[in-house]
Amino acid sequence: MAPHYAPSLWARLPAMALMLEIIFIVLFAFFVETEEFKKTKNQEFLYLYANFQDVHVIVFLGFGFMSMFLVRYGFSGTGFGLLVAAMVVQWATFINAFLSSFHSRKICFLVNAELCAASALVAMGAVHGKTNPAQLLLLGLLEVTGLVVNQGLIKKLFKNDTFNTTMQLHVFGALFGVMTSWVLYRSEAEPRHEKEKFDSKTGLFSTLGMLLLWMFWPSINFVEAQEIRIMYSTYLSLAVSAVTAMALSVLLSPKGKINLVHVQGAALAGGVAIGAIRTVLDPWVAMVIGMCATLLSTLGFRYMKDHMLFAFECHDTCGVLSVHAIPGILGWFADLFLQLVNTDDATIAIRFAVHYICILLISVSMSLVTGTITGFLLKLKFWKPQQDRKCFDDQAFWEFPHLAVHN
Amino acid sequence: MAPHYAPSLWARLPAMALMLEIIFIVLFAFFVETEEFKKTKNQEFLYLYANFQDVHVIVFLGFGFMSMFLVRYGFSGTGFGLLVAAMVVQWATFINAFLSSFHSRKICFLVNAELCAASALVAMGAVHGKTNPAQLLLLGLLEVTGLVVNQGLIKKLFKNDTFNTTMQLHVFGALFGVMTSWVLYRSEAEPRHEKEKFDSKTGLFSTLGMLLLWMFWPSINFVEAQEIRIMYSTYLSLAVSAVTAMALSVLLSPKGKINLVHVQGAALAGGVAIGAIRTVLDPWVAMVIGMCATLLSTLGFRYMKDHMLFAFECHDTCGVLSVHAIPGILGWFADLFLQLVNTDDATIAIRFAVHYICILLISVSMSLVTGTITGFLLKLKFWKPQQDRKCFDDQAFWEFPHLAVHN
Amino acid sequence: MAPHYAPSLWARLPAMALMLEIIFIVLFAFFVETEEFKKTKNQEFLYLYANFQDVHVIVFLGFGFMSMFLVRYGFSGTGFGLLVAAMVVQWATFINAFLSSFHSRKICFLVNAELCAASALVAMGAVHGKTNPAQLLLLGLLEVTGLVVNQGLIKKLFKNDTFNTTMQLHVFGALFGVMTSWVLYRSEAEPRHEKEKFDSKTGLFSTLGMLLLWMFWPSINFVEAQEIRIMYSTYLSLAVSAVTAMALSVLLSPKGKINLVHVQGAALAGGVAIGAIRTVLDPWVAMVIGMCATLLSTLGFRYMKDHMLFAFECHDTCGVLSVHAIPGILGWFADLFLQLVNTDDATIAIRFAVHYICILLISVSMSLVTGTITGFLLKLKFWKPQQDRKCFDDQAFWEFPHLAVHN
Repeated sequence: MAPHYAPSLWARLPAMALMLEIIFIVLFAFFVETEEFKKTKNQEFLYLYANFQDVHVIVFLGFGFMSMFLVRYGFSGTGFGLLVAAMVVQWATFINAFLSSFHSRKICFLVNAELCAASALVAMGAVHGKTNPAQLLLLGLLEVTGLVVNQGLIKKLFKNDTFNTTMQLHVFGALFGVMTSWVLYRSEAEPRHEKEKFDSKTGLFSTLGMLLLWMFWPSINFVEAQEIRIMYSTYLSLAVSAVTAMALSVLLSPKGKINLVHVQGAALAGGVAIGAIRTVLDPWVAMVIGMCATLLSTLGFRYMKDHMLFAFECHDTCGVLSVHAIPGILGWFADLFLQLVNTDDATIAIRFAVHYICILLISVSMSLVTGTITGFLLKLKFWKPQQDRKCFDDQAFWEFPHLAVHN
Repeated sequence: MAPHYAPSLWARLPAMALMLEIIFIVLFAFFVETEEFKKTKNQEFLYLYANFQDVHVIVFLGFGFMSMFLVRYGFSGTGFGLLVAAMVVQWATFINAFLSSFHSRKICFLVNAELCAASALVAMGAVHGKTNPAQLLLLGLLEVTGLVVNQGLIKKLFKNDTFNTTMQLHVFGALFGVMTSWVLYRSEAEPRHEKEKFDSKTGLFSTLGMLLLWMFWPSINFVEAQEIRIMYSTYLSLAVSAVTAMALSVLLSPKGKINLVHVQGAALAGGVAIGAIRTVLDPWVAMVIGMCATLLSTLGFRYMKDHMLFAFECHDTCGVLSVHAIPGILGWFADLFLQLVNTDDATIAIRFAVHYICILLISVSMSLVTGTITGFLLKLKFWKPQQDRKCFDDQAFWEFPHLAVHN
Repeated sequence: MAPHYAPSLWARLPAMALMLEIIFIVLFAFFVETEEFKKTKNQEFLYLYANFQDVHVIVFLGFGFMSMFLVRYGFSGTGFGLLVAAMVVQWATFINAFLSSFHSRKICFLVNAELCAASALVAMGAVHGKTNPAQLLLLGLLEVTGLVVNQGLIKKLFKNDTFNTTMQLHVFGALFGVMTSWVLYRSEAEPRHEKEKFDSKTGLFSTLGMLLLWMFWPSINFVEAQEIRIMYSTYLSLAVSAVTAMALSVLLSPKGKINLVHVQGAALAGGVAIGAIRTVLDPWVAMVIGMCATLLSTLGFRYMKDHMLFAFECHDTCGVLSVHAIPGILGWFADLFLQLVNTDDATIAIRFAVHYICILLISVSMSLVTGTITGFLLKLKFWKPQQDRKCFDDQAFWEFPHLAVHN
């Protein structure tokens, strides 16, 4: 009986992935300057290598394992994360090399590409379980294109040096993903799919992913800001976040127990918020920001997530709105506030405020528009998405040889 | 029926954690010199960053996952580890900044704070599963306070430069935890709680934690000693330890099989012992010390752990006495022995011996006394500990949403 | 009933391991120059420390966890990996110190020893589940001896500076292991043992191991080549590999689904192939090589593995032939091809070709011969291998205390 099986990936994923790979290789052969590729010095690179590897772990291991809390979605969570990140890294390398990279003091192309991949993975967090890998691949590539275009636009308009990719990474990615998920809403599979839950095994794997993100988050903020004090601030902010998240989770729970998924998300909020800040902070200010970000994030998990689902028919699998969007926007306003406090001149203060708010508005609008368009593209029957019954389930996409043996 | 449920954390954990966080923020605002915080140079920091991140992984991931072998205690093992470590890191940063840090050549405050957190996690290992998170939080803070006071005391009394935090970290932490556990002894839950066992899933997670500790242990010894040869010695000693632990586990087993938990503990003994040594070692001496430490540790696991339980009513969940205390003390005496061998002058030799033994005696006494006091503080009914039936069980503290869905 | 139990390890493993340890300590005491050990400078070491730690993670965590996909072989996969690697590291340190290390620009002895251990773990991959730890220990020591002798031989014969350990590591290790497995073939346990499968838990653990290998592979190629561009090439090649492996797995699957084990192996093929190359590559060339290596590796998994089993009675547990041998040889020929393209002079080109092919032939012959000899040594009844029924099963070697409690 055909309807028992998810539509085969045969006709879509391989053709798309292999074709894109061949196109990428041709593009690299013609457009990626090999000089650029060759001139980096060993010394300079190794100096930042430990830092880069932390980002590498966050992108390829952390995000994938953290999204693994769904009870039957472990292979897909990590596997498709690897697939999309590996593809996006190539695409981002190309477009950054083509458009001239937006940060030149970075260790060549790698860090930029990884930050773009992180942004795509944030967007993926909102649609996990409801899309097939071919759709995720398209989503990843469009998200990164949107992100880079948005960054180019802001750079053109504002000519600012203190450009902040990290804020964009989180806010743009999260809103993009949420909009896509909104368009893709499956009324049959909701309000809560029977497989949308965690058990003790998947909970422990996602704890592993979350701890990797939590531990290496200071590195992802540092790699962007290149300022050691941002790393210290992130470190303290995350420490406060972890404690606050656990306390608030108990406080807001009807039974007085800790909710694993909420804590995992909210404990990262402090790191996201600090990532949006370029002002040098006193330690205690970083701690206050971490506490506020965690508070908003926990409230978002407890109340807003269901509200989004019932009121707006918008389903956000990993709660990226609470983990990335809200703390990112909070951090952006905190940065603006700190800039205003440090400025005596009212004219400059107003310029700062307009500047910050415009950048945020442009980024938000871009992410909402591109996310919605991507959603409609992914909704085409052409992509053969899995049936509602097969959502949040590895069996739609992965061979389970031990089942074959038993039959 | 009330007795079915563990006492809610609602009234204790959130109030305590949030109050402490607010106090910490105020203390940081007034007492942590921001100059100190700001003056570190990028260059200097990045140079040691890889090394610091290894310690970070040990503290936040390694200890948590290693304590995860208990079959139903995975969320608590890692979650409460994160909670206590994140809190202790802030407290240790403050008291070290306040009392002026005991090592100034370290990369600022971070490393010190992490070593203190490691010590608290060692102490926690003895009481895992028998306490609630509010109790663990108090235990962590008191342990670190005791450790720092002890270090200040020894520094005052002996004015020595070759001060050894690593030895203290292990010996102080382990004895502190064991004494606390002794006071908290629950005769109902013993001799062996039905949930105090591992299965293949939790065994693999704790193997992951143990391997992270094993791999990055050279870094934790290096970060303290700042001497590359200590790192080499640790590396070789750990290699010998891993092999010896597996061989001895088979040899001492009635069925000739390997015991996972014993091997995991004993394979780290070599690293702990070398951590207590500041003399530069020949490679073969490091290997001999690793072998002896593993031998003692394995014997401790096989025979002493049960003896402690039945004779002294002292239950040591993770076997911290065998993993941390015994190898630490062995290393301390090995260091003394090597110092005596290298000294020709009898007067100096005697001074050395007195010096070493006094430091050990003071540390041991301090840890025993403070651990006992902490135990009595934690025994207060105020803390609402879980019932005996709910020991070693995540369900006392964590929401399991998938159960709610099924009902 | 005796036949219910696997033969006890009691009489073999402890005696062998402890005896070897004591011999190693004596050899270290007499032959490992402590000057060598002591003269390394902190600065120089820390510079490469992040890089070294990545290799450390690959050897002790990555290989072990990746081999954990077998449903009942998790403890053995990681535990015996640790046992053999820890032993081989000591042995390799000794023979490299004795024969004078084959690369002097490395950070002292550690990196060499780790690369040798990696090679032994590759060989182990072919015989996992069909041997006991005492046999694995012997296999590891003989493999490394063979590898070092082979390298010494090639160095003597060709006096070349561009010596490539990484190629040897993979090709020598894989062919050695496959030959050993061929000799050890158990007709009863084949064609497919009932425990030779994965489930969702072990699949996720092996995904963790595979991602660690995948992420840190650029480091293992760099640590050998000391050339930053090799690292970039590996990075791009692996990104292409991951995408291609997933696409090809779907394409070659009858049901249009992804096979986890095939993808895990084939996604690493690009990194192995680049490791065999010392020529500096354009980015697009690295990507093409990654794609070809993955194609060959996937075909090897889908078709050759079963063919080897049925036609040659050679069982390759982890598919090391497809992951390590084929991509390694492909990379070696790609390197030769690139050398020929860059050479104008026909005489030099012919010398190059002869040179490359001879090195490959010598390595292959040596690995086949030593692997076969090792196989016959391991086949001796003296080693008391487990029964066919107990293959791929932890219970033959590990205590499961929770079973004892239940009984």
